[in-house]
Amino acid sequence: MSELIESKPADAGLAAEARKLDAADELAGLRTRFVLDDAVYLDGNSLGALPVSVPGRLADVVYREWGELRIRSWDESGWWTAPERIGDRIAPLVGAAPGQIVVGDSTSVNVFKALVAAVRMADADADADAGANGTVDGTGAGAGDAGGRRRDEILVDATTFPTDGYIAESAARMTGRTLRPVTPSEVPAALSDRTAAVLLNHVDYRTGRLHDLPALTAAVHRAGARVVWDLCHSAGALPVGLDEHGVDLAVGCTYKYLNGGPGSPAYLYVRHDLQPRFDSPLPGWTSHADPFAMHPAYEPTTGARRGRVGTPDILSMLALETALDVWQWGGAPGGAGGDGDGDRVTIESVRAKSLALTDFFLRCVATYVPEGRVESLTPTAHAERGSQVALRCDDAGDVMKRLIHQGVVGDFRHPDVLRFGFTPLYVSFADVERAARVLGETLGSLGQVRRS
Amino acid sequence: MSELIESKPADAGLAAEARKLDAADELAGLRTRFVLDDAVYLDGNSLGALPVSVPGRLADVVYREWGELRIRSWDESGWWTAPERIGDRIAPLVGAAPGQIVVGDSTSVNVFKALVAAVRMADADADADAGANGTVDGTGAGAGDAGGRRRDEILVDATTFPTDGYIAESAARMTGRTLRPVTPSEVPAALSDRTAAVLLNHVDYRTGRLHDLPALTAAVHRAGARVVWDLCHSAGALPVGLDEHGVDLAVGCTYKYLNGGPGSPAYLYVRHDLQPRFDSPLPGWTSHADPFAMHPAYEPTTGARRGRVGTPDILSMLALETALDVWQWGGAPGGAGGDGDGDRVTIESVRAKSLALTDFFLRCVATYVPEGRVESLTPTAHAERGSQVALRCDDAGDVMKRLIHQGVVGDFRHPDVLRFGFTPLYVSFADVERAARVLGETLGSLGQVRRS
Repeated sequence: MSELIESKPADAGLAAEARKLDAADELAGLRTRFVLDDAVYLDGNSLGALPVSVPGRLADVVYREWGELRIRSWDESGWWTAPERIGDRIAPLVGAAPGQIVVGDSTSVNVFKALVAAVRMADADADADAGANGTVDGTGAGAGDAGGRRRDEILVDATTFPTDGYIAESAARMTGRTLRPVTPSEVPAALSDRTAAVLLNHVDYRTGRLHDLPALTAAVHRAGARVVWDLCHSAGALPVGLDEHGVDLAVGCTYKYLNGGPGSPAYLYVRHDLQPRFDSPLPGWTSHADPFAMHPAYEPTTGARRGRVGTPDILSMLALETALDVWQWGGAPGGAGGDGDGDRVTIESVRAKSLALTDFFLRCVATYVPEGRVESLTPTAHAERGSQVALRCDDAGDVMKRLIHQGVVGDFRHPDVLRFGFTPLYVSFADVERAARVLGETLGSLGQVRRS
Repeated sequence: MSELIESKPADAGLAAEARKLDAADELAGLRTRFVLDDAVYLDGNSLGALPVSVPGRLADVVYREWGELRIRSWDESGWWTAPERIGDRIAPLVGAAPGQIVVGDSTSVNVFKALVAAVRMADADADADAGANGTVDGTGAGAGDAGGRRRDEILVDATTFPTDGYIAESAARMTGRTLRPVTPSEVPAALSDRTAAVLLNHVDYRTGRLHDLPALTAAVHRAGARVVWDLCHSAGALPVGLDEHGVDLAVGCTYKYLNGGPGSPAYLYVRHDLQPRFDSPLPGWTSHADPFAMHPAYEPTTGARRGRVGTPDILSMLALETALDVWQWGGAPGGAGGDGDGDRVTIESVRAKSLALTDFFLRCVATYVPEGRVESLTPTAHAERGSQVALRCDDAGDVMKRLIHQGVVGDFRHPDVLRFGFTPLYVSFADVERAARVLGETLGSLGQVRRS
């Protein structure tokens, strides 16, 4: 770094403050549960770091469960029930009671299941209303797929991660609806009696903006529609409160703040009272009421298991299960960060640290980075901030390459965004101070280079 | 076993013949590439045995690629291109040139993609024909989803593994078609100008019957329809010849004869000339022409990659990639079983051994098993036999439990089928003789018990 010309010197006050914050951090001890090196890893919102417990468990799954027990493991090692068992491990992190989450497939595939099912629920609601008013037209409950005379619109978050929009377009096409992209703030005004379902992101993948899940869910419900929330960028970083806020359906990935590993299976939440009405567009054999009877006719099972499709992907799924162990305080029930419910790390304590980390990062950036060189796209209000900070920067692609070269790993989002994710389980305040300092040095150096 | 009363004594001739057959087996050396124990494992058609190479590779994927390189592995470790790269490894086993197979998702999900895409191709064919005849009605290419005025029927193998039928029902519902279950032998007579697409199994999961892929494919094409083949029970056990026979689309799992591990990702074949017309119902971001530009509008990429959906499941996918190494003769190009194309184990040599194994098993069963106690559901004609033998047996559930207890592992299919799968890569003729002998002893013993 000696060749870089620093525009602002390191601030001894910030470094000292970082040390103090780390010393007081009740979650600091969790860092040792991850495989980390000298780099500052601020890309856990893309791929979570490796939990120390995973390699050993995966070796056991491979050698003993697959290699020795082979097919017996479907019963004896609990492979068959893994999707709902691991769903129940995720549940407390997103504010869901047990029995409402299944793990499996990718986020995209789960968006398709959830959104099509939501539209079908809206049709069933309309049929029920029509029946109550004596105006049933005899087209039956299945008419919604071909018809669309009733609630004919799906609203989709126009700022969503693209795959949700692509899948929503397919869901609209295949259920005979019109897809209407709107920003989350436009949703309340866009809702009407034409709205069948709404697909929203809890946290914007690009800007890190946190949307108001309780208010938007309530607005969708007032319009008589169903809402599907994508939790990819919030689950594991902040409280979601699915049950508390009456969310209908939700999906999320497990490889970001849940540290499940590259491409680890996603999950689907179906609220308890809606499960009997969950009509999947992907009714695979593992969601059958009696899968091993091999009936030619499909009869859905009960519960969240209705969201299952094919044979579960065991290696990735059990790696995820082990990764979730980091949320347990080993042998310290009720200890620091515990919630009294066994010895779980609470999502509230994680959220508090997350906000402290991003607050501190924004302060360090303001101190270290040359004036006007970056612009934060992430809201300053806590209620509107996820667990990342996005900085707009003209030469963001080049800048991120230089940061990574210097051991500060964030990522670049086309065309001009530097994205930094803060995983409270393993990111320290010292990391934050260093990241901002290196960013400041890098931008200062580039500024000098340009002027020369 | 001394307490069992044998109805027929062990046949020294068959045991000696098994030794002779094993000594002459050019594939015998492959057995050491798998983790096997003293059991006779005849359930590789449910879950293939663990290849010796997998644990080490998976440890490297976890420790180094995920733990150390983290997100850099998407590029540097080739994670991003794994679906098509591993597809190209499967391709020669099913008679496909490179660039036509992608790996990912479950078989069920791939059946959905393939069947919906097949129906849409049929619609596009009809539109093109109508255009050529000057009768286009102006409803456009998308009309097929809501309409069904043209080719309004999907035929599905009534003997299929249930999930295919369930998913076909959903595909029919969502494309506005009627689903008509017929046995494969009834397909030629059932085909008409109403047929949009046909979903067939190459090998019946229950009986082990091999269907005539070339003739059925030709019949479907003569009717102007598209065919989707499910290769779960044939790929890796016998030649499929996808390109040679002009198959349109195909799917298959990788955890049976391809030994990819529990729930390892499935694959999708889209014939080269049909790829520009592959219109996926699950257009996820990883099949976008420029996925990292994060465009709000979907534009499909070219090639088999159009079949991709979400983020690939890396741990399971790379375990599968390593498992496919068993098909290479290490350092012995052109050696025994090689096909001159590098040093690949040929599917023809595997097929020859498979038929020899099942022939020998049927002979051993005829010798060892009390007359009339079991009935083979598997055809005797080689052209109609997959790589398994299914024996109907009144007390099959109880019998299979006893067999497994004695180290002969097959499986039970409700209500009365004993199913034995023969993976030529690791099953020996001595295994076959022992399995039939223990079956005979068990059935003899049960017969005695009954009479007492």
